[in-house]
Amino acid sequence: MPNLAIRTETMPSSPIRRLVDYANRAEARGVHVHYLNIGQPDVYSPEAFWSAVKQTEIKTLEYSHSAGTAGLRAALAEHYQQHGIDVGVENILVTNGGSEAALFAMLCCCNPGDEVIVVEPFYANYAGFAVTAGVTLVPLTARIVDDFRLPTAEEIEAVITPRTKAILLCNPSNPTGTVFGESALAEIAQIAVEHDLFLIGDEVYREFYYGSETLKSVLQLEGLENRTLMIDSASKKFSLCGSRVGFFVTKNLDLIAAALKFGQARLSAPTLDMLGVEAALRNTPPTYFAEVKAEYMARRDVLVSGLKSIPGVVVPPIDGAFYAVVELPIDDSDRFCQWMVEEFAYEGETVLMAPATGFYITPGLGKKEVRIAYVLDQDRLRRAMKCLAEGLAVYPGRVVAEAVAA
Amino acid sequence: MPNLAIRTETMPSSPIRRLVDYANRAEARGVHVHYLNIGQPDVYSPEAFWSAVKQTEIKTLEYSHSAGTAGLRAALAEHYQQHGIDVGVENILVTNGGSEAALFAMLCCCNPGDEVIVVEPFYANYAGFAVTAGVTLVPLTARIVDDFRLPTAEEIEAVITPRTKAILLCNPSNPTGTVFGESALAEIAQIAVEHDLFLIGDEVYREFYYGSETLKSVLQLEGLENRTLMIDSASKKFSLCGSRVGFFVTKNLDLIAAALKFGQARLSAPTLDMLGVEAALRNTPPTYFAEVKAEYMARRDVLVSGLKSIPGVVVPPIDGAFYAVVELPIDDSDRFCQWMVEEFAYEGETVLMAPATGFYITPGLGKKEVRIAYVLDQDRLRRAMKCLAEGLAVYPGRVVAEAVAA
Repeated sequence: MPNLAIRTETMPSSPIRRLVDYANRAEARGVHVHYLNIGQPDVYSPEAFWSAVKQTEIKTLEYSHSAGTAGLRAALAEHYQQHGIDVGVENILVTNGGSEAALFAMLCCCNPGDEVIVVEPFYANYAGFAVTAGVTLVPLTARIVDDFRLPTAEEIEAVITPRTKAILLCNPSNPTGTVFGESALAEIAQIAVEHDLFLIGDEVYREFYYGSETLKSVLQLEGLENRTLMIDSASKKFSLCGSRVGFFVTKNLDLIAAALKFGQARLSAPTLDMLGVEAALRNTPPTYFAEVKAEYMARRDVLVSGLKSIPGVVVPPIDGAFYAVVELPIDDSDRFCQWMVEEFAYEGETVLMAPATGFYITPGLGKKEVRIAYVLDQDRLRRAMKCLAEGLAVYPGRVVAEAVAA
Repeated sequence: MPNLAIRTETMPSSPIRRLVDYANRAEARGVHVHYLNIGQPDVYSPEAFWSAVKQTEIKTLEYSHSAGTAGLRAALAEHYQQHGIDVGVENILVTNGGSEAALFAMLCCCNPGDEVIVVEPFYANYAGFAVTAGVTLVPLTARIVDDFRLPTAEEIEAVITPRTKAILLCNPSNPTGTVFGESALAEIAQIAVEHDLFLIGDEVYREFYYGSETLKSVLQLEGLENRTLMIDSASKKFSLCGSRVGFFVTKNLDLIAAALKFGQARLSAPTLDMLGVEAALRNTPPTYFAEVKAEYMARRDVLVSGLKSIPGVVVPPIDGAFYAVVELPIDDSDRFCQWMVEEFAYEGETVLMAPATGFYITPGLGKKEVRIAYVLDQDRLRRAMKCLAEGLAVYPGRVVAEAVAA
């Protein structure tokens, strides 16, 4: 047979899903697995979505406009306006999930061989989109000892080269839960202007922010209208991961016209799901978001207090999204996460986490860290933290930290 | 602002949609436009799809498996088995429409700079996927004077180079309605083996075949199991264009594992739509397909008899899909199609067609040809043909054919 393309080898497998087979085998042995490895919320999707979908009188499910339905784009523009982001329908392209928005961003901003700077650890699938677009991701390492804060301007400028075209920032961050506030954004904005770069904000977790400061979008950076692009999605906002409705939003009309050409090639996003998301945007009461946010804050608190009670665990601030990257007293996170589902159980239960190595591209980083998605209810989270504590106590590769904070 | 990527310029705009603005203005003037420019069927989607979607008790619309839901893949494998195509669930990856299957095919089979041979005129969006994948499309021209039959083995081999990785064949063909039968497939299969190429069959119109011979899939070519790949879709099969559910089907397990990595990066196809398509596959009575096929055959006959009654129009055999590329006695199809919606009306009506130039990459071809999608009911089609005849009679760029067949 003919050889497959080289990119089929450079294309990474999902670091989140590698251990799922082991978890399945644990379940086959009768062990209950708490899944903290993947960001699939258990929250109900809004009733407005289901009503719209179930009451539709459409007979023929047709293609939609390649930019998305007029109704959804109008509803989304209103939604952004209400949140202080001044965009209109002409600034919005509906995509097949935030995934496609990220891919379109790389395809439109970068030539093959161009570089995109990404704050590391980062959402692992960016690496996949980069392979498709022929783009080189350049890591800008944020460190757990610095609470995963944005590196300094000097550190950012040190990784800029003549091939750098964009900085990609996930805010709030998947996988760390870090929120980059106004001063961090201002620092990045200045660098983007000075070095003539695009600034891509992946803001799919914007509703999941637990701080008091107002979360600022890259689209609100003054003077950067032509170089900022926001990736957004219905997936997390409305617990509609399976709807595959995302958004590519920019005030740069040349950029959106370019992205629309890629959109035309694949015809349209799913019509029925767009109808449902439009209804969710228009008819979901503010109490829905308030309840969801309160629930995640409570989960975050359960997680943090559980983790902090385990000796040797380092827990940075977690201000948004529903993830955390924490350091454990272990030799190797891949080995530990596998061991937890392959060899360990506590009272018939165990925990599946994602080794953080898959969220770094700098070799060797993340070996003592895991990503935890706190997408389970508080009782289950408590049990999961108990399993983790018991597992760490007996794990053969346990490493006693040199200096554990008091 | 930073420059956009070069590929945003090489990325073609949709040739089908360019004239839509003119059509909209015609409607604003009160002219009724018959839309024969786009392959959006007017047929109802199956009741089974709507029932499944409307009766679902899902509360949280979650991501699905990146390869598609187990239920849909099983239903599809059964569907293929019933049609004599021997594949199992392990051979099926569910994609965001046939569009994504075509993109994955190019990404997995070809390195940037590799070549894919495509029978011309071809589905225009292939050019878009080729830009994304960095692939060069090499046209293999089929000619209307030859009834758009497959070129000879010598002609095919003449366009093969050391960079050729695949042959892409749409069968039945969009845009011509040509069906490539057993002997054509055998010819291509032999060439694929001799030159070590992949053979990609875009068979999304396989249910729309009006001949008596059984339509053979590339997957049924013996000895080519590791080099054949079928692109399929729910869009046309079930008039579910807006569902964005397509299929990447191959017996080459390395190829499907590679495509799954691209699938994992974008997480999943739309969950609710997959549920509906599974139900459509399982519960749509055979009479649905029989009725749809009979309707399209009747429309095809209305179209052909209407076209043949117009002097100077060349109508090749139309054996499948719901398109035709026909030659008109005109100077320039782009000019003519625009003139029809911009300046012409007959009894308050006109017709929007797609200039065939957009379906060729060889410069200069298609200038006397238009693509017609016969997706309107028979009465409307008759009126559309009347408009076309009247338009051709008075079009300023009319060219009298040198030798009109008796």
